[in-house]
Amino acid sequence: MVSIDLNSDLGESFGPWPMGDDSAMLDLVSSANIACGFHAGDPAGILSVIREAMSRRVVIGAHVGYRDLVGFGRRAMEPSSAELIGDVIYQIGALQGLAKAAGTSIHYVKPHGALYNTIANDARQASDVIAAIKAIDPELTLLALAGAPIVQQARQAGLRVVCEAFADRAYSADGSLVNRRLPGAVIHDPEVIAKRMLRLVKDRVIESIDGVEITIEADSICIHGDNATSVATARVLKEAFIANGVHIASFIPGVNGGGRE
Amino acid sequence: MVSIDLNSDLGESFGPWPMGDDSAMLDLVSSANIACGFHAGDPAGILSVIREAMSRRVVIGAHVGYRDLVGFGRRAMEPSSAELIGDVIYQIGALQGLAKAAGTSIHYVKPHGALYNTIANDARQASDVIAAIKAIDPELTLLALAGAPIVQQARQAGLRVVCEAFADRAYSADGSLVNRRLPGAVIHDPEVIAKRMLRLVKDRVIESIDGVEITIEADSICIHGDNATSVATARVLKEAFIANGVHIASFIPGVNGGGRE
Amino acid sequence: MVSIDLNSDLGESFGPWPMGDDSAMLDLVSSANIACGFHAGDPAGILSVIREAMSRRVVIGAHVGYRDLVGFGRRAMEPSSAELIGDVIYQIGALQGLAKAAGTSIHYVKPHGALYNTIANDARQASDVIAAIKAIDPELTLLALAGAPIVQQARQAGLRVVCEAFADRAYSADGSLVNRRLPGAVIHDPEVIAKRMLRLVKDRVIESIDGVEITIEADSICIHGDNATSVATARVLKEAFIANGVHIASFIPGVNGGGRE
Amino acid sequence: MVSIDLNSDLGESFGPWPMGDDSAMLDLVSSANIACGFHAGDPAGILSVIREAMSRRVVIGAHVGYRDLVGFGRRAMEPSSAELIGDVIYQIGALQGLAKAAGTSIHYVKPHGALYNTIANDARQASDVIAAIKAIDPELTLLALAGAPIVQQARQAGLRVVCEAFADRAYSADGSLVNRRLPGAVIHDPEVIAKRMLRLVKDRVIESIDGVEITIEADSICIHGDNATSVATARVLKEAFIANGVHIASFIPGVNGGGRE
Repeated sequence: MVSIDLNSDLGESFGPWPMGDDSAMLDLVSSANIACGFHAGDPAGILSVIREAMSRRVVIGAHVGYRDLVGFGRRAMEPSSAELIGDVIYQIGALQGLAKAAGTSIHYVKPHGALYNTIANDARQASDVIAAIKAIDPELTLLALAGAPIVQQARQAGLRVVCEAFADRAYSADGSLVNRRLPGAVIHDPEVIAKRMLRLVKDRVIESIDGVEITIEADSICIHGDNATSVATARVLKEAFIANGVHIASFIPGVNGGGRE
Repeated sequence: MVSIDLNSDLGESFGPWPMGDDSAMLDLVSSANIACGFHAGDPAGILSVIREAMSRRVVIGAHVGYRDLVGFGRRAMEPSSAELIGDVIYQIGALQGLAKAAGTSIHYVKPHGALYNTIANDARQASDVIAAIKAIDPELTLLALAGAPIVQQARQAGLRVVCEAFADRAYSADGSLVNRRLPGAVIHDPEVIAKRMLRLVKDRVIESIDGVEITIEADSICIHGDNATSVATARVLKEAFIANGVHIASFIPGVNGGGRE
Repeated sequence: MVSIDLNSDLGESFGPWPMGDDSAMLDLVSSANIACGFHAGDPAGILSVIREAMSRRVVIGAHVGYRDLVGFGRRAMEPSSAELIGDVIYQIGALQGLAKAAGTSIHYVKPHGALYNTIANDARQASDVIAAIKAIDPELTLLALAGAPIVQQARQAGLRVVCEAFADRAYSADGSLVNRRLPGAVIHDPEVIAKRMLRLVKDRVIESIDGVEITIEADSICIHGDNATSVATARVLKEAFIANGVHIASFIPGVNGGGRE
Repeated sequence: MVSIDLNSDLGESFGPWPMGDDSAMLDLVSSANIACGFHAGDPAGILSVIREAMSRRVVIGAHVGYRDLVGFGRRAMEPSSAELIGDVIYQIGALQGLAKAAGTSIHYVKPHGALYNTIANDARQASDVIAAIKAIDPELTLLALAGAPIVQQARQAGLRVVCEAFADRAYSADGSLVNRRLPGAVIHDPEVIAKRMLRLVKDRVIESIDGVEITIEADSICIHGDNATSVATARVLKEAFIANGVHIASFIPGVNGGGRE
């Protein structure tokens, strides 16, 4: 039976400011990337979403980011290696602590925003993130962009890596994501998204923005949770998977009884 | 043989701003209260001081504080229980993560500044801090103010509590610390400090500011590390202890081969 | 003709996190209390809401708060006088700068949240806020809680003070606000609110929670803008005022052509 | 008579963390670049250094930086134009407010750290900073790196620009600063510094790291104030100027009676 993981960014509220509909998304995904306080998330809110994820048997991971709250971790930065390593360990440790207090643990790390994009290709910052993960817990899986150089770099360093595709993003013929600012970069039609992702899961193929069929090896699909339509899109996607015999399950073996359906 | 723990607040640098002489203090103390990022400390600097503490076989603890960097955690605040519990777990978790990355672990928690003073007497905030420690790791020892109500509260909740005295502070006849703003509240003469602390360790007695002998049950002595004379004072104190046959050792049994001498 | 000012808290978004519907509220109020970055608000967002206020001819004021972003300035704090005076001047200056860049200026100061509540009665912190306003611009009006001790204190210090009532809050018989945590403290029915406020404007009388008629001298009414129903409530209130011949206008004489109707 | 301005970065303490010896530097310089809270500086400390600058008749300017406290504004960032414009206006406004409260005003803007380096060459970010200054006060002078593209860009936009050289830095033959990480980039010998700067002031010539004489048009010299030897170096430099008939005076005409000697 074909199986796929669905992941989404959660716990991104901060103090009085809510973001996204975490409860609704937790009914749909098998993995929750949980903010760790540097780009978003406050401890009390993070603890609350961890508990909710546990009650839905959703696997949790650390969504680590640059220390840039007002910029939501979306602005490229150049921390030194000591700074970046320290910041990543600190965030993972804080989330591990909150998870432990809730009676669970984290299984993976997914860098966020500008850090995610930078380490996809920047070997120095990638190396720092890999070193940080290995230092705090080498059993943690790294969730990374399918096809990016960091995938090999992290595997060579001994980390388990799971690759992901983006449900609502257009791809270039070389397998990279089309820049968000370009027309057509973001796909809004839930039916189109579902059709593309079904093909990706079944055939490992996605059609690029200029019509070329490309192969993407992805064991997880990221669905965004921070805007009004994302829950609706996620629901359509999940229903399409179930209707087509695709099992939704975490990429962590043996965790939580084997996933979501 | 009589034995006592010496503890000091370390890791309180932040970004480009140094504070105290951590290296010098680590040569003198048996326990290092390490800042966790909320009142002071950045991850790279914290990691560095943890490594230095390890190399000197100094036991480390989490110096958790209010989320108030500019105020250095010294201003009274009224976080909700959910906020305070979350903040304390987050800080302990972050420090545990950095300690694990350095190949060590933390053994105790000492609240900082206004949080320390508040929970000494405020049962609600004390209860939140106790709940946070128990939730993340009930094996952690709480380092608290000798004679304060929190000592019994935490013990009744099942935590191990170690009590501390302050080397450079005057005491009132009821065993409380004289308010810092009052004349005579802070003792500056290292010889006077050494004499007072020797008597405390040997006889469990300290003379109050108005000449009354009071009993203080303390297994640790806090020596401040954030100003120019603190290292010199700590050195005098340590030498006085050694000269009088007092062994300096962590209050954590069996850790690091039994302490500092 | 009877006239009243309507004020609301705006500009409280932060980075990626929106709050309230500033555009809708700016169609309804005559005064906008604009966040200054310490409890909420980022510079780009503040500048944007200032421009929008200008285009609707809404008078703007500085909504200064404690430096506590995650707590939204709602947690009581004890800054020193030097800290509080500096923080208030800094926030007013920053908002003046953004207003000047937009081609306008600010006319009043309204403290926010815990600072507002504290200075209503705490003479020391009130004195600091008054000193800060006088130091940066003694022509600024202070918008304060009707009946609170700070009103006299600020007037004696030479500041112009305008008093406000709260549209959706119950009052005790002594004229103070009923604590938010008590039942009945917040009034939700827009028709009830409109009726109470009409009476307040016309007769300077409001009925307390236990049925006593009390006199409130208020030249402005605060309507909250940070939740879903606040715009609807504000609209009902404004329509009731217009239908009953109450003119909605800023309390700043001669500004923006005399207000909102 | 030949005249030159000496400027230094001041007000860079933060909360409990001091930085530099502001009092000593204020005895030596004619211009004080005062931190505005984003890379360093808290309002109470800034207000205090402004008052001290006033009492020494030192001209003050806004030392605006990226919003990166832990990184001290030294890490390259990519804020959007709206963010950067807002951040620069906010900081200038805040400093203007504190200056007004102290009874003085600011006369120039000097970007700090990574922002300074970036806008020297990055036309987009330079344009944002220029736009921000013009929006809040087009009379403010921009203090910029001699020879950098921003000098012409800002002048063409209508700003007055004053160029500065760095007392302790080596120059490449093309007039740019030698990268700090390269050997010889920082000059430590006060006598060498004094000799080089005297020649710069008298002949507008400096010798590059590889022995080429280059022309630098600078009306101000930056002397750093954040380390132990900087005050001593500044003192030697000032004495050399006085001994050689060079007048130390602000580049702002007619301010404070014409400078420092």
